[in-house]
Amino acid sequence: MNSFGNLFKVQIFGESHGPSVGIVIDGTPAGLSLFEDDLLLDLERRKGGLQKATTPRQELDYPLFKSGIFNGKTTGQPITILFENNNIKSEEYQAQRAIPRPGHADWVAHQKYGGNEDYRGGGHFSARLTTGLVAAGAIAKKLLQGISIQANILEVAGEKDINIGIQKAIDANDSVGGIVECKVNGLPVGLGEPYFNSLESMIANIMFAIPAVRGIEFGTGFNAATMFGSEHNDAIVSTDGKTQTNHAGGIVGGISNGNELIFRIAVKPASSTPKIQTSINMDSGKLEDFSVMGRHDLCVALRAPVIVEAATAIVLVDCMLQQQHLKRVWL
Amino acid sequence: MNSFGNLFKVQIFGESHGPSVGIVIDGTPAGLSLFEDDLLLDLERRKGGLQKATTPRQELDYPLFKSGIFNGKTTGQPITILFENNNIKSEEYQAQRAIPRPGHADWVAHQKYGGNEDYRGGGHFSARLTTGLVAAGAIAKKLLQGISIQANILEVAGEKDINIGIQKAIDANDSVGGIVECKVNGLPVGLGEPYFNSLESMIANIMFAIPAVRGIEFGTGFNAATMFGSEHNDAIVSTDGKTQTNHAGGIVGGISNGNELIFRIAVKPASSTPKIQTSINMDSGKLEDFSVMGRHDLCVALRAPVIVEAATAIVLVDCMLQQQHLKRVWL
Amino acid sequence: MNSFGNLFKVQIFGESHGPSVGIVIDGTPAGLSLFEDDLLLDLERRKGGLQKATTPRQELDYPLFKSGIFNGKTTGQPITILFENNNIKSEEYQAQRAIPRPGHADWVAHQKYGGNEDYRGGGHFSARLTTGLVAAGAIAKKLLQGISIQANILEVAGEKDINIGIQKAIDANDSVGGIVECKVNGLPVGLGEPYFNSLESMIANIMFAIPAVRGIEFGTGFNAATMFGSEHNDAIVSTDGKTQTNHAGGIVGGISNGNELIFRIAVKPASSTPKIQTSINMDSGKLEDFSVMGRHDLCVALRAPVIVEAATAIVLVDCMLQQQHLKRVWL
Amino acid sequence: MNSFGNLFKVQIFGESHGPSVGIVIDGTPAGLSLFEDDLLLDLERRKGGLQKATTPRQELDYPLFKSGIFNGKTTGQPITILFENNNIKSEEYQAQRAIPRPGHADWVAHQKYGGNEDYRGGGHFSARLTTGLVAAGAIAKKLLQGISIQANILEVAGEKDINIGIQKAIDANDSVGGIVECKVNGLPVGLGEPYFNSLESMIANIMFAIPAVRGIEFGTGFNAATMFGSEHNDAIVSTDGKTQTNHAGGIVGGISNGNELIFRIAVKPASSTPKIQTSINMDSGKLEDFSVMGRHDLCVALRAPVIVEAATAIVLVDCMLQQQHLKRVWL
Repeated sequence: MNSFGNLFKVQIFGESHGPSVGIVIDGTPAGLSLFEDDLLLDLERRKGGLQKATTPRQELDYPLFKSGIFNGKTTGQPITILFENNNIKSEEYQAQRAIPRPGHADWVAHQKYGGNEDYRGGGHFSARLTTGLVAAGAIAKKLLQGISIQANILEVAGEKDINIGIQKAIDANDSVGGIVECKVNGLPVGLGEPYFNSLESMIANIMFAIPAVRGIEFGTGFNAATMFGSEHNDAIVSTDGKTQTNHAGGIVGGISNGNELIFRIAVKPASSTPKIQTSINMDSGKLEDFSVMGRHDLCVALRAPVIVEAATAIVLVDCMLQQQHLKRVWL
Repeated sequence: MNSFGNLFKVQIFGESHGPSVGIVIDGTPAGLSLFEDDLLLDLERRKGGLQKATTPRQELDYPLFKSGIFNGKTTGQPITILFENNNIKSEEYQAQRAIPRPGHADWVAHQKYGGNEDYRGGGHFSARLTTGLVAAGAIAKKLLQGISIQANILEVAGEKDINIGIQKAIDANDSVGGIVECKVNGLPVGLGEPYFNSLESMIANIMFAIPAVRGIEFGTGFNAATMFGSEHNDAIVSTDGKTQTNHAGGIVGGISNGNELIFRIAVKPASSTPKIQTSINMDSGKLEDFSVMGRHDLCVALRAPVIVEAATAIVLVDCMLQQQHLKRVWL
Repeated sequence: MNSFGNLFKVQIFGESHGPSVGIVIDGTPAGLSLFEDDLLLDLERRKGGLQKATTPRQELDYPLFKSGIFNGKTTGQPITILFENNNIKSEEYQAQRAIPRPGHADWVAHQKYGGNEDYRGGGHFSARLTTGLVAAGAIAKKLLQGISIQANILEVAGEKDINIGIQKAIDANDSVGGIVECKVNGLPVGLGEPYFNSLESMIANIMFAIPAVRGIEFGTGFNAATMFGSEHNDAIVSTDGKTQTNHAGGIVGGISNGNELIFRIAVKPASSTPKIQTSINMDSGKLEDFSVMGRHDLCVALRAPVIVEAATAIVLVDCMLQQQHLKRVWL
Repeated sequence: MNSFGNLFKVQIFGESHGPSVGIVIDGTPAGLSLFEDDLLLDLERRKGGLQKATTPRQELDYPLFKSGIFNGKTTGQPITILFENNNIKSEEYQAQRAIPRPGHADWVAHQKYGGNEDYRGGGHFSARLTTGLVAAGAIAKKLLQGISIQANILEVAGEKDINIGIQKAIDANDSVGGIVECKVNGLPVGLGEPYFNSLESMIANIMFAIPAVRGIEFGTGFNAATMFGSEHNDAIVSTDGKTQTNHAGGIVGGISNGNELIFRIAVKPASSTPKIQTSINMDSGKLEDFSVMGRHDLCVALRAPVIVEAATAIVLVDCMLQQQHLKRVWL
């Protein structure tokens, strides 16, 4: 299913080359000032065409409020945000349909939906659906007053210097991956539950909803596996829970401890590389060389930070509502 | 909250030093042959006292079926499994209560539950609650006929040779972490959903419910971030979806593709190290040296594989019921 | 929250005088033939302006598919259906805003949402939101091949002869209520669960989502309270579960028994009566006489049958998916 | 499934003649004083053997806390309450198994669970499972400080004088039904949501989880269908929302309006009547006369009020947590 959250729920919908993509956000407290323009900054960050190595597709991405807003404020009812799809070239997808693109969902979608999937531009699997996520995230951020969420590219193609990383992709005429780090400051203590609704569980859950994410680690993460306990443990040095180090990344026992929340995600190289690739032709049963058509990013990780922030914000609002840290009416 | 799953739901409960720990499993199809002894093998794997570097606490861990089984078969109703707590030494926890143990949930629990938490032996946060998970996993495995789930220690304390890793801990008189890899074979194509219920999302969600897990990666994982797209993409080489390589780890677009499912988790070193540590005394507001008492593992990662398998099996049964791959009655 | 269902989920949104109303339907199996026109018959039944005693508001009610349909078939992804709002007169609502209309949600909405509610035409509380429900119901009915769902007016204003009932309303220049009965034939045995997800629980849950519903009874219903057990019990007379009588209305132990499913709902008279009424003026704190403006039905029960059918169909599809009675792909 | 609730969740389990029945309650705020004896008063009200027309089975019904309580207070973790089954006579059920008892779940359970159901004493379908509900309800009532919930028998066998009603059953040597009314005072305004989580939806949902309930109506209920709108509408007479009449029963637009919450439920006569009945013998395929054995109530409605109160309290706590009306820590 395509929904997430308990008290702050998002339901995404749409297809890359269908009439629209969008999201319904249910559970936004009433009285929050909200205009369509409030979402544009984050939507702009998500958009392609701005940087080398991102797609030249011009997505207008103007969010249409279809419900839940009245007189520039949230009503407490579901907010529906629609992005009409305009700038679409679909023909080429039909031509190459028999050959499932490696790394893409073409083959599994065909199996799971019995051939009824909208295969144009990845259909429902397209990263275009993250526009809705970013829009919801921008609203969530507005609710999280006093909490800052910042995601940044940490590495591209294995390089700390992002420009070197991007140049590597351009030189190789190939797509590359990257690592994104997200830091949250100002979180109250006590968000998350032991076990299944641990803060890590909820964040990880939504991060793997972002296309191309292959791993997540909190705090010291995988390196923790090589440390001694006496090194890894963060000594609590004041009664408000501040710790000397922050190997835990701000979560202990599944629950926020008031220190900076830190996690990193691994983003694979875009499946749509300009390189010639081989795949099976499902009609002939034979392997074929082919090249992916359409307009694509060389490094999807570059667009990821704002999506990671949005997803984080969505989780945090849900947690804060569950912990009764957010009042429901902004009077 | 302490429950997980949609059609195959588990609800865990209990405290390390309370009357019991256990689990309620709702959604098991009727007619599955099930005896308490069927669970013992996996419970034994989870137990301490068997290996160097695991705790000498003798947990009897005998599962009591309190509901849902009749004449040696599941009835289709909730199965309640209770583990009575017997071998308990609680006094020492009271003595050191003012000093929250670093790396443990003591401090956050105190904040979140206003001092009402059962602090003895970690209370509800204790890894002892994973007995219930392992019991549910053993049932889930029985349902997953023809599917094998195997988790193994890949590394301890940064060493591929586990014995070297354990010796490192013993020599340093300190706890150490490790990495566990899980492989699933025989999975049908089509499990998982795009976005929020991606197979990765659900697996990651439940893995972070296991105490001490700090990271998860699927397939090539974090290394994917350093690869070119043309390298990372798995070429589909036959019409049944078999791929030449398996960098994706068996999941594409959030959906199982019929290849081996592979993921790894990072387990931090046990917070309870024998080393002297520093923490705040919440009564005096001063830092103090102290050593953690109680019986503890030097390397909790050693117990993790069977828990990881159990958690994986729980997710997979849920997915298979949602995909209608499992019949509900074993006639 | 505004969503319902487990495997077949509906999320409604919109306001009577906002940009649109609509629904997202998540969980429709792939491959079902579906055109916008397929929904028109039921939408027409729901519409006002067709009968004496229903509102003259001309709602165009043309359903726009915004996602989830490709080449005239469902894709297995969320289906978004939008109804643009056109024929709107909102001014009068502003004028009478200080006086909460008795029987309407004006006063509670104002309290709950802190004055941020869209008060025009009942806003999100308007029965106009049932268009989405009817659209989803029409899809659900298509999935329920071989199962017939028929709801009918049983009584209007206490009269079995509906025309007499309606004439009573017209003569009194007042709104009137009614009783709707719903019968389902062809249901498989085994839908529903004991206790919280009993078939009655799920049907009752969704029926009370329909505005103006005040009661529900299954089979003999309230009359069962006056019968002897030997009278009320339905004797099973054949091995396929057919019963001699059907006082249970097709559900025993929360589970469908294969006999006709029957239930009735009570619909109150529309709160918007043409009669002069008294209510508090929230600004002055004084009681005032006023008359409700806008265009309204004298008997909303007349529109209810198709909504009751839709709600029933939504529940039944969800139950059938849970019981694995519906295949997910229409190949 | 056998769970209910969003922030205050109950999971019931057990069988009438299995090892135990019980409940897990997840979401109780920490710090509430709670002893097993606190539950006894309500459990006593539910028990048989106290009144004419209720069963002579002596259920000890002593609640064992298996988790979630520490030092006489709730910890904020799942509370498991177990009732061991002791006083059991099961043999007779085996003897009459081939003949499904009319009105009972025997036949549907056999179909749904493929013959694997625990058929002894109704198994999981037994009203004995309501002990858990009553225990959870007693906890919920403690959380609802300042809110009174009172359910009473309104009618037995069609008689307002309960004793006459009961005597009718004794004279006829047959079971009889009844009507229970529940009134809640002190509710805050604003509980419940429009549409699917209307307060009526949630209450109706859980009421139909109580065995033998056949109908529910709020406020004026079915009689509303015979009234004019001008009669039925409750005039708001003060700015705090008090109404002159209370035909709505305290809920408007799905949301509590601060007036008394009133609803009634219809309870059918117990299926286990002492009268000779006819049913199919599933082995021979022939109709047979038989009489139900075991110990049973002539009027289960007599036990219902405390169960209705419990179910109501569970819903209300969940709603109040969602509305942030309940603090999570009782310091």
